[in-house]
Formats: sequence, structure tokens, C-alpha cells
Amino acid sequence: MIYNCLDNIEKLDKTRYKNAKDYIDFLAKPVGSLGELEEISARLYSIYNEDKIDVSKRCIIVLSSDNGIFEEGVASTPQEVTAIQSINMLEGKTGVSVIAKQFNADVKVCDVGINKDIFHPKLINKKIRKSTSNFLKEEAMTKEEVLKAINIGIELVNECKKEGYKIIGTGEMGIGNTTTSSAILASILGLRNDEVEKVVGVGAGLTKEAYIKKVNLIKDALNKHNPNKNDIIDIIKKVGGFDIASMVGVFIGCAYYKIPVVVDGFIAIVSALCAVKLNENIRDYMFLSHISMEKGYNLAKEELGLPAYLNLKMRLGEGSGCAIMFSIIDASVAMFNNMATFDEAKIDTKYLENIK
Amino acid sequence: MIYNCLDNIEKLDKTRYKNAKDYIDFLAKPVGSLGELEEISARLYSIYNEDKIDVSKRCIIVLSSDNGIFEEGVASTPQEVTAIQSINMLEGKTGVSVIAKQFNADVKVCDVGINKDIFHPKLINKKIRKSTSNFLKEEAMTKEEVLKAINIGIELVNECKKEGYKIIGTGEMGIGNTTTSSAILASILGLRNDEVEKVVGVGAGLTKEAYIKKVNLIKDALNKHNPNKNDIIDIIKKVGGFDIASMVGVFIGCAYYKIPVVVDGFIAIVSALCAVKLNENIRDYMFLSHISMEKGYNLAKEELGLPAYLNLKMRLGEGSGCAIMFSIIDASVAMFNNMATFDEAKIDTKYLENIK
Repeated sequence: MIYNCLDNIEKLDKTRYKNAKDYIDFLAKPVGSLGELEEISARLYSIYNEDKIDVSKRCIIVLSSDNGIFEEGVASTPQEVTAIQSINMLEGKTGVSVIAKQFNADVKVCDVGINKDIFHPKLINKKIRKSTSNFLKEEAMTKEEVLKAINIGIELVNECKKEGYKIIGTGEMGIGNTTTSSAILASILGLRNDEVEKVVGVGAGLTKEAYIKKVNLIKDALNKHNPNKNDIIDIIKKVGGFDIASMVGVFIGCAYYKIPVVVDGFIAIVSALCAVKLNENIRDYMFLSHISMEKGYNLAKEELGLPAYLNLKMRLGEGSGCAIMFSIIDASVAMFNNMATFDEAKIDTKYLENIK
Repeated sequence: MIYNCLDNIEKLDKTRYKNAKDYIDFLAKPVGSLGELEEISARLYSIYNEDKIDVSKRCIIVLSSDNGIFEEGVASTPQEVTAIQSINMLEGKTGVSVIAKQFNADVKVCDVGINKDIFHPKLINKKIRKSTSNFLKEEAMTKEEVLKAINIGIELVNECKKEGYKIIGTGEMGIGNTTTSSAILASILGLRNDEVEKVVGVGAGLTKEAYIKKVNLIKDALNKHNPNKNDIIDIIKKVGGFDIASMVGVFIGCAYYKIPVVVDGFIAIVSALCAVKLNENIRDYMFLSHISMEKGYNLAKEELGLPAYLNLKMRLGEGSGCAIMFSIIDASVAMFNNMATFDEAKIDTKYLENIK
């Protein structure tokens, strides 16, 4: 599935993009004065093959999984929190749940590798296995597992398409996944050992000592496995996670099925970068939400080449920024669908004296 | 009214602020991981004297007025656009109208000095006179007019309070008002003649030639009137506008009546700075929305000392960013009111195996 999708992703329709831009320039405002709201609508209009833009049915797909590297003490949070918060999300109790509800977005949680047996009527169970392997000792997963995870992501989008979702946000839950994300980002950027620290942050909150340990074990793992910077599948296999691999699949699927997708936070932007390295057309379907506080985010953003719209100093993950981004998209769509053109803005003379 | 209000503005209630922060730290997420969403709620909780935060009834007050300096050719847009767009706002056709509607915010338009006789059933008519004077030739207004405009702004907030509004956004419509705003900002910052350019932008879009003219006439006006940088009333009187003066009143009123207020765009942040220079406690009630593209915005923001949350490259004015900011505030309030605490996040064991 993955290769068929990757071979069939179209770039934005330039004619539709230009038509949208021309129309927006004819709305009753100084040309360009709504900035990124104009750009967002023009891209949405190019993605959808419809006259009006409709983003009312939206969801956030949260990929949940555990990471073998956890056992090295790289996280400040117990591992069972992955399981607990995955269920809490479905119960409407976590950050992403309450914010998504506020903005009429559904939250779908997919277990791709939680290290516990968990059950919940709403949980999508696609568990590959319980947790990846500890990448300090062995490769995080097999190549077959990488491809399986990516295909799961693509299939999730296919299901969303069938259910009528018009826009998708990406979230994750997985204790230890800033470590896997940093290792992948260091590989993609081809960082030298002494540069690795640039992309390693404190995650949910680490002591100075634990932080140094985290940096060093990423260096050790990269030295041990020597991932090929030009082979994304190889990188994910060696130092990635099931959450990241399946999120790469979500990005591929969104581009293939022409559904705009919101990239939220550090783990998501690293996954987005993996997807774009597999096929750069995928970038056209992506919208970044907030500038994450996790160290490395800005380097990833620069490499990806897209703007982020929100400065909220957030670093929760879960896709919590997606829902807020949906409301910025709503503002853009309101402009596109409902604002008057210069012609329509010529007002009824009954309201005026002295104006011809 | 103004001096009574200015003398009776309280700082944030530190106890309520601390209680809110403590509560937020007990929500099921890493401490501080929702960044500015946490700060916003803590401030809102301190402003309102209520258990739950409720920001559902909200409006944007748009102050509309013309500027005498228009006749010097400082704007790219005809002057009647002030009148036309003021009515279009009430008819739901402009940028702020469609975005406000999307986020359930009302738009109130108040004529404080439009240079036309205009009529609309929803227009609030508080016209001081038709346009300020050309500040290159004489002072923009009298001291009595400054005070009258400020009192109008305070009274508008009082009316909003009576109508049950819980949060207010600020917008403006007035061709030529980036010129008055730049002149005020240069005065407040005490810029030398050769530094004035730092706070002068192209407004809705100026040619290079017109831009140079705009910079020079601001310099000439400041040299002619020599406003006292420590006397905000003097500055507004000499180079301000009725829209700015009444918006200063809105900020004073919001602080006095304890209603949080969103500061949107360049004209609004200059007005906000005027208000804070009159009483620095007013800052506690303000929330910035987007980083305006108008040159000078960032210097004003630095002087004001508050963060802005949106990078949307907008420069429309009208209060168009306020409505989007309301949705960020909604996200913050959803977190505060609806997220589970760590105690509540202990999940039902029926969903788990292997987790005690």
C-alpha cells in the first residue's frame, strides 16, 4: 500500500490555487492584508475539488505506543501513563480531549504498540506488538514492522475519508517518544555526534542529569546503528517508534486521499519530515499549528519549510494544538466563503449622505 | 469619569492567581506543558470573581473615525472607505464581521468621528465631530475632545458590562490611522527625528514615495507640536485620533469594570500603550492577539511587555484578529473548566490489564 500511495501523490492544483488567490484579492480588504488566512484558504481550495470550502467535520488521530528505550530512564513519567492517558483521551479527560471538544473535533485513539493490554469500546486496536525494542541494544523494530505501521496510518486515513472527515489533525501518546523523535531528527539532519544536543529537549521534564543521559544514549545508538540519512525506512527501523511510523502513514494517506492535515508538536513535525523526505509533494497537504517548546522543533520546521501559526509555549503533545489550529482554519474559511467582494461591498445608499 | 476610573483600577488578585496556577498544576499533564493556555486561564480566573470561567458572551468594539492628516495623502485608500466599511461591518460583510460570526462574537461599531453623516440601525453614534484636524497644520483635537473620546470608550464598556459581555475585543476603522498611531508611538518612545522611520509602516499599502512623505510629515508634526512624552493626553491631543482616544477609554473601562480585553493590531497596541502609561495596572486585563505586520508593532509590544499569540502576517485591522484570539481563550478555558485533575485521571480498572 505504501509504495502505491507514494507513487500517486499529486502536487497542489496550480490553476485552482491561482483562482483562489485571485478571488481572495477581490475581497473587500487591502490585497494580502489577511496574510496567512489567505494562504490557508487558497491551499484548502486547491486540495478540495469543490466550490465552497467545508472543514466542519474534523478529527484528531492520536497514535499511541510505547518505546523500548524507556527502560534506559529517558523519561520523567512512568510507562503506564501511555496506557492511562490513551484511555483518558477517549473518556474526554485529557488536554487534547477537552480542547477538541471545544472546537467540534473528534478524537480517535489508535493503539499501535502500547505496552499493556488495554480495552476501551472506542479504542482502535492496531497493536503491532507491545512496545518497540530498546534501540540502545537492538534495532527498534523490523523493516516489516515499519511498513506495517505506515500502512496502518494510511488505512486510518482511508477510514476517515469514508466517514466524511474533511480535515485531520495528528497527535501521539507514548512515553519516551521525544527520545525517538530526536534520534530520527538527528539522523535526517545528518548531525555529527557533537551536534546531537541541538535536537534533544527535556520532554515532559527531565533533570539535568537525565538530560545528559538522554543525549548520550542517542549518540550511542546513532553510532551503533549508523542509520542511512537518505533512507527514512532505515532510520525509523533503527531508532524510531510505532507511533512515529504510523503517523508517517497518516501524512502519506492524507496526501494520497487529498485531506489536509495539521502537524502538531515535536513528534509530529519529525514524522512529517519523514513523510516529506519520502515524497516532497506531501508537504502541500500539511499545516503546522504551534511552535513547540521542545528543543529541536525549530530546526525541524526549518528543514520542513512551512510556517507555524501559534506561539503558545506548549509542549504537551497529544495533538492538543491541532484543535486550536482548526479554529484558525475556520477563520480562514469564513473569510473565503463569507466575506464580501469589492462589488458586493458597495453599500446601500440609504445609509449614507454625502457619499455618492 | 476618566480620572475616577484611573484612580480605581486594581491589580490582579494575587491570591486568586496563585490558586488558579496551583489548580492548573494539578491537572493531568506535565506541569507547565500547556504554556500560555495556563497563563491565560490563571489571569482570567483572577479577573473574574467566579468559580468557573465563562467567556461565552463576547464582542468586538470597533471605533470608527476619520483623520485630518488624510488630506496630506498619507493613505492608499479613499477617505469614504471609513464610512463604507463601518456600515459593511454591521452588515456582516467585512473581515472582522465574518470571522467574529464564526466565533460567536458580536461586532459593535461606534462612530466617534467619521467624516460623513451615516445612518445604520445598529451603528452607535457618538460622533465627536467630523474628522480630527490635520495635525500638520494644527493640533488634531482639543484636550476636551480627548477626554470626551476617552469617556465614550469607558461608557461603551459600561454598557457592555450591563449587557453581560464577559470579554471584549478592540478594533478600529479609520483611513489614515496608522499615521496617527505611528506619531503617537514615536512620541511615547521618545524617538529622535532620525529614528521615527522605525515605527512607520506602509499601512494598507503605500508607494515608496508616499511612504517617505508619511515619515517626513510625522517628523514635521512632532517637531512642530513637541508633544510631552510623559503626558499621554497631550500626545493624543496633538497627533492622535478619535478612534485611538476612545479605544484608550475602552482599555481603561475594561480594567475598571474588570473585563478582559483583547488588543488587536497596530492601532490597538498603540492605544493599549497609551492606557498603560496612564495606569500600569491596566496591563493585567490585556491579552494581545496577533503580531501585526505593520512596522512598529514589535517595538510597541516590547514597550507594553505582553506576549502575542498568533503569527498570521495579518495587517487588516478592524479587530479581525480578536475573534481568533477568542478561540485561543476558549481553548484555555476548556482546559481550566473541563480537564481532569490527576485524581480524576485515575482510570477505571475495567479498561486495563496489568495496571493496578
